Amino acid sequence: MKATIVTIGDEILIGQIVDTNSGYIAKALDKIGVQTHEMISISDDKKHIIDTFVSLQDKVDLVIITGGLGPTKDDITKHTFCEYFEDVFIRNQQVEDHIVALFVKLNFNPTQVNKDQALLPSKAQVLMNNYGTAAGMWMQKGKTVFVSMPGVPYEMKGIVNEQLIPKIVKEYKRPYIIHKTILTYGQGESMVAERIEDWENNLPAFIKLAYLPSPGRVRLRLTARGVNKEILEKSIQQNVHSLTKLIGDIIVGFDEDETIELVVGRLLTQQGKTISTAESCTGGKIAQMLTSVSGASHYFRGSVVSYATDTKVTVLGVSQTTIEEYSVVSAEVAKEMAIGIQKIMKTDYAIATTGNAGPSKEEGKSEIGTVFIALATPKNIFVEEFNFGQPREKVIDRTANKAMELLQKEILKNVQ
Amino acid sequence: MKATIVTIGDEILIGQIVDTNSGYIAKALDKIGVQTHEMISISDDKKHIIDTFVSLQDKVDLVIITGGLGPTKDDITKHTFCEYFEDVFIRNQQVEDHIVALFVKLNFNPTQVNKDQALLPSKAQVLMNNYGTAAGMWMQKGKTVFVSMPGVPYEMKGIVNEQLIPKIVKEYKRPYIIHKTILTYGQGESMVAERIEDWENNLPAFIKLAYLPSPGRVRLRLTARGVNKEILEKSIQQNVHSLTKLIGDIIVGFDEDETIELVVGRLLTQQGKTISTAESCTGGKIAQMLTSVSGASHYFRGSVVSYATDTKVTVLGVSQTTIEEYSVVSAEVAKEMAIGIQKIMKTDYAIATTGNAGPSKEEGKSEIGTVFIALATPKNIFVEEFNFGQPREKVIDRTANKAMELLQKEILKNVQ
Repeated sequence: MKATIVTIGDEILIGQIVDTNSGYIAKALDKIGVQTHEMISISDDKKHIIDTFVSLQDKVDLVIITGGLGPTKDDITKHTFCEYFEDVFIRNQQVEDHIVALFVKLNFNPTQVNKDQALLPSKAQVLMNNYGTAAGMWMQKGKTVFVSMPGVPYEMKGIVNEQLIPKIVKEYKRPYIIHKTILTYGQGESMVAERIEDWENNLPAFIKLAYLPSPGRVRLRLTARGVNKEILEKSIQQNVHSLTKLIGDIIVGFDEDETIELVVGRLLTQQGKTISTAESCTGGKIAQMLTSVSGASHYFRGSVVSYATDTKVTVLGVSQTTIEEYSVVSAEVAKEMAIGIQKIMKTDYAIATTGNAGPSKEEGKSEIGTVFIALATPKNIFVEEFNFGQPREKVIDRTANKAMELLQKEILKNVQ
Repeated sequence: MKATIVTIGDEILIGQIVDTNSGYIAKALDKIGVQTHEMISISDDKKHIIDTFVSLQDKVDLVIITGGLGPTKDDITKHTFCEYFEDVFIRNQQVEDHIVALFVKLNFNPTQVNKDQALLPSKAQVLMNNYGTAAGMWMQKGKTVFVSMPGVPYEMKGIVNEQLIPKIVKEYKRPYIIHKTILTYGQGESMVAERIEDWENNLPAFIKLAYLPSPGRVRLRLTARGVNKEILEKSIQQNVHSLTKLIGDIIVGFDEDETIELVVGRLLTQQGKTISTAESCTGGKIAQMLTSVSGASHYFRGSVVSYATDTKVTVLGVSQTTIEEYSVVSAEVAKEMAIGIQKIMKTDYAIATTGNAGPSKEEGKSEIGTVFIALATPKNIFVEEFNFGQPREKVIDRTANKAMELLQKEILKNVQ
């Protein structure tokens, strides 16, 4: 079963925004055995849209479209959609009620333009948008189902998860697709390829291998496609087993899209432990990562972002003498920040960061990119120094990621 | 002059990685007046690649391809490229010397597989890759030039900037494209559209308007295309001028990359005022926005993320009675949080947030999406209630954006 994903929007074609919707949809389709054949980004232009629809009809089973469903003049997808299906608009009362309710909640009066978003092609099956005003539409022409959804990512995601995927699962028979990703570290793509050449040549026809290199690491992705789930799983398992025998020395993991904040959150919840952060150079980034996870209130108690130097003393209780003696960007200050926040927030673990994220050296004498990360645990406290280079954004991101990584390692250690 | 950008790679079609290359290339092309007609992502499959090339030949002037040029078996772009042009491979000595030199630098010996990356179609004009081993290729068939580049982002970027763009500029005549982006805050897309309807209808045919909404803000993008740069610039200027007269009250900036955190940062710096935040439901997001700007230390002093209820009392000094009487998600608590942090951090302004970002109602009895934002100024304090709906991610984003907007308005008020 094949799908093509179409993104409509001039802002993508001039590079003003990056299309992340298609990847999200492709992943969701892949999980239920629908293969994405192509992704296409086209302009907000009627002829271009129609030509694209015509070229896709009867070529794939599903065409999933995002973008161009807003209420303004440049949003032409809905009208084009209606025209392509030679249909007429009728008012969908359920959608109009939903739109009005959304506006009332925000203390706004919906305009006629807003209400008219409930005008939908008469033959369309509506996919309710619980997070916005533009409804999704499901319509068939020839052998192909065309689905139109808004381009706003969280609205699209809501429709995909709550409406689209369940509907596809209900209405189509699909093959199984199984992926297994093997993360290797420390050897280049061509080196890895040489080591596993024989193994690769002996893979069964229904298993495909891909190399995904990035600085310092290569991910190997195995993809098996077929109708018998058991055979696919068994074959993947056997081949991963024989691969591990060959290059076990450079394999570091098998997980694909787990984020570190999810992993840390799960570990802390399981163990009933709590965490707090005292952040200087990261400016709240670590707190924000921790609280981006649903259920964070079970383990995250709070944070102090002590950006100005004197707030490290007055709020976190860092000693003025320590700052004068070692400077504000130092292991000693990081340590005292961690101890301070652990006490203030009454938590088991505490992370502290102090560093110079740049762009200039003005505050303190530390080099741009120098960062100290302290981690207080129920038993002890330690601190590490790093240099994360430039620019500012990268220093902040890498510090936050490294802090989470240190935390994860430490929690795991304290379990054993 | 039109281009289509083609990305080759199964990892994109299964949603494992997001294609950021196409956006980068589109932006670079747009700057020199080349219009991106479409972006297409296809699989590492010979027939699929050839079919795509055939469908694009003579339809656009340029086809820019990335991906599939690595040294391993799954990288088939180079062979397919050669076949499509009915060409044969010859060894390019300059490329081979460059590959060997790259390996020597890293203290590795290149394998034969690595050296064979210097085998290139005989008719290809080579675009040197100074950052990796896979060379770029420029070949013409019919009216269309096909350019193939590696998919590794920093290698692709190097070739685009150092080789591709200069070559296009040299070999083609191109029209002018001018963009102007106007950033507005606080009114929805449909509201803005209503206010500027007449203006929009009177835009000249060579100027296109696009609405780019995101939580709490709408970007208006004007695009002018034509051969006379002076006329385009003048018309854009005149239209922006008349637009400012219409909706000057909600315009916060004109720069494409202007963000509210930059605007607020500039205002605070100019006035020598300081800011702090006390965050509950936003979990540090506002602090993180404020500190994402270089030079934030001039105005941002610090923040307390009081996620657990008792930390609002112990750290921020919110009264236990207030929490019991009004609940933790209330105007009264938001107010006391703002007053508390303003005092602790000794700042002119202070923002406080408390709300329920979801996904469940467990903490307190407030509806999911209910948020109170308090703003303390040097003169007074006020608080506003909002309902930002769902999901969690949206509530956090909209709360942070709204808080910044309230802050900006208040600072501007205190100037006058």
